[in-house]
Amino acid sequence: MRPVRVALDLLGGDRAPDAVVDGALAALSTDPELHLVLAGPAELRQRWAAVADRVTLLPTDESVGMADAPVRAVRSRRTSVRLAVEAVRHGAAEAVVSVGSTGALVAAAVTELGKLSGFRRPALAAVLPAVAHPVVLVDVGAHAGASDADLVRHGRLGAAFARTVLGLDRPRVGLLSVGTEPGKGDALRRKADRGLAGSGLNYIGLVEGYDVPLGGRADVVVTDGFTGNVVLKTLEGALALTERGATSPRAATLLGVAGHVVVGHGAASPADVADCIAVATRAARENHLARLRTMLENPGSTPDPAPSEPAADTPAAQPRDGAPIETASARAGRSENRLQARTTAAPAAT
Amino acid sequence: MRPVRVALDLLGGDRAPDAVVDGALAALSTDPELHLVLAGPAELRQRWAAVADRVTLLPTDESVGMADAPVRAVRSRRTSVRLAVEAVRHGAAEAVVSVGSTGALVAAAVTELGKLSGFRRPALAAVLPAVAHPVVLVDVGAHAGASDADLVRHGRLGAAFARTVLGLDRPRVGLLSVGTEPGKGDALRRKADRGLAGSGLNYIGLVEGYDVPLGGRADVVVTDGFTGNVVLKTLEGALALTERGATSPRAATLLGVAGHVVVGHGAASPADVADCIAVATRAARENHLARLRTMLENPGSTPDPAPSEPAADTPAAQPRDGAPIETASARAGRSENRLQARTTAAPAAT
Repeated sequence: MRPVRVALDLLGGDRAPDAVVDGALAALSTDPELHLVLAGPAELRQRWAAVADRVTLLPTDESVGMADAPVRAVRSRRTSVRLAVEAVRHGAAEAVVSVGSTGALVAAAVTELGKLSGFRRPALAAVLPAVAHPVVLVDVGAHAGASDADLVRHGRLGAAFARTVLGLDRPRVGLLSVGTEPGKGDALRRKADRGLAGSGLNYIGLVEGYDVPLGGRADVVVTDGFTGNVVLKTLEGALALTERGATSPRAATLLGVAGHVVVGHGAASPADVADCIAVATRAARENHLARLRTMLENPGSTPDPAPSEPAADTPAAQPRDGAPIETASARAGRSENRLQARTTAAPAAT
Repeated sequence: MRPVRVALDLLGGDRAPDAVVDGALAALSTDPELHLVLAGPAELRQRWAAVADRVTLLPTDESVGMADAPVRAVRSRRTSVRLAVEAVRHGAAEAVVSVGSTGALVAAAVTELGKLSGFRRPALAAVLPAVAHPVVLVDVGAHAGASDADLVRHGRLGAAFARTVLGLDRPRVGLLSVGTEPGKGDALRRKADRGLAGSGLNYIGLVEGYDVPLGGRADVVVTDGFTGNVVLKTLEGALALTERGATSPRAATLLGVAGHVVVGHGAASPADVADCIAVATRAARENHLARLRTMLENPGSTPDPAPSEPAADTPAAQPRDGAPIETASARAGRSENRLQARTTAAPAAT
């Protein structure tokens, strides 16, 4: 694998800096071609003395706390999250990771890296290990609400991301709502449904909560950041109940900014931090941003072939357990009928 | 167990009437003291011929489809859901079950049975099998949105329901948001957070998605109907992944109307329908409505033990547009509790 440089906010997160440093050390030991640009207190240097040749320190003691207003990340020049993001802007790193305040990271990324043309607000995407195949959920919390136009943009970003990281040619995009019949949900979903139907995306219509852990209907599930964040955390709690111990990777990618930005939960463990770094590393090595940009400009083009390296961090499609999943098979049959109905019916006029 | 009469909408649901009839037969065979009042086509009579002594038929061929506007349930006098709800109003049944359009059932219940005083809109409550203890989630889909005042009411309804069905003395109430720090989430949650803090309920502050499947922080989780419905279905899909085959009961209870109303999913199997009937049967036998009313009037009182005989104030005996259930002294008592909570409570939840 080629050498890669990733910036890391050492002071973001409930268990910073110790859990973050431990995660960094784990990543460095797993990936001999990784170089980390760490933004955090100089006094921590001893922790990585053994691998100092693969670490650059951007010294600072300032951070943005979880309860601080995100704008603090932008006002102060020396917060750890800001320094880490700036490293990408300056080319000192190819990707940035933080498990601190998501709002602060988003604010810093928008300010320092800029937004992709045509995308008013970035959105966070998580890849979830559903039964049938991985499912991309977006937005999982870059912003609390969304307009109907934002939801259509989430669809575009999510589809381009699914093509990039999952190698899908034409990902099926679904809009999360409370029923599958046209019109189900609130006014926002009804408007977004119309927008998505006319977007040129492979839009399969409304999907329900089941479709996120089960998959089978949509590869990309679109929602507002509040709902997405709640669903993501609900699923993470539920997956903890499975005896298989299936876990979703605790990393989400910020889409719609001009840089590789990976976010983790505040409660990230060292292993979670290492996962986030792995996701960022892959994005940088495969230059996801360039591919994403191409796909956003050319929604119908075939994606470049995936690189030959294994995508170690992509959640494998989980095999179904032995118990019959009535709902899933019923859904699959029903969605096929619905898809046929959509392609033969008149243009959507919900 | 004492005899109990439950009305059932035979034409509601994706698999109606066959799955609904099968569920009805299963319930009848499990509970020899159950009498069902079935609203549906007369031609189905043969199906229950063997237990005809415990079945009353309200014949109709009209139904409200999942894509129909809920108001159809109210406009047409002979839809199966309306007849079933009317049976409760007339005292022919003590509870009603439908696995058809939730909107139609809610509209019929509000129109025919009336709302409890002080509750602008009813809310659907589901009891979920979390790791630490059962969790009541409300609203799971009676309505798409909610005002901040509605969310506070959901808290009251959910707490009274948790006291009634879970035997909890003072259920912990949490508001579902995207983080636990004060202010996390959207404007609606910030307002509702203040309202709940001053409500006199045992409000523990903001909770996250994890807290629904895990439990441990709140017994009652409050949200708007859109988010609640998405979370409920997400969890149901996720629970299907567990090898334990854990399933949440596929029944939700409509709170805030003057009758026992139980809702199931449109895709209900016969077993799901039988579950819904069992939930309705328990509610009727234990007269949950009377206990719920008492608790809503007296948020701090200890719940009465479940009655062994039908209470005098069964729904059938209540006038539809009846006298307010809350006396002036009860209201004064409630505001006194709230005043105490404000003056003695620690500063608002962190």
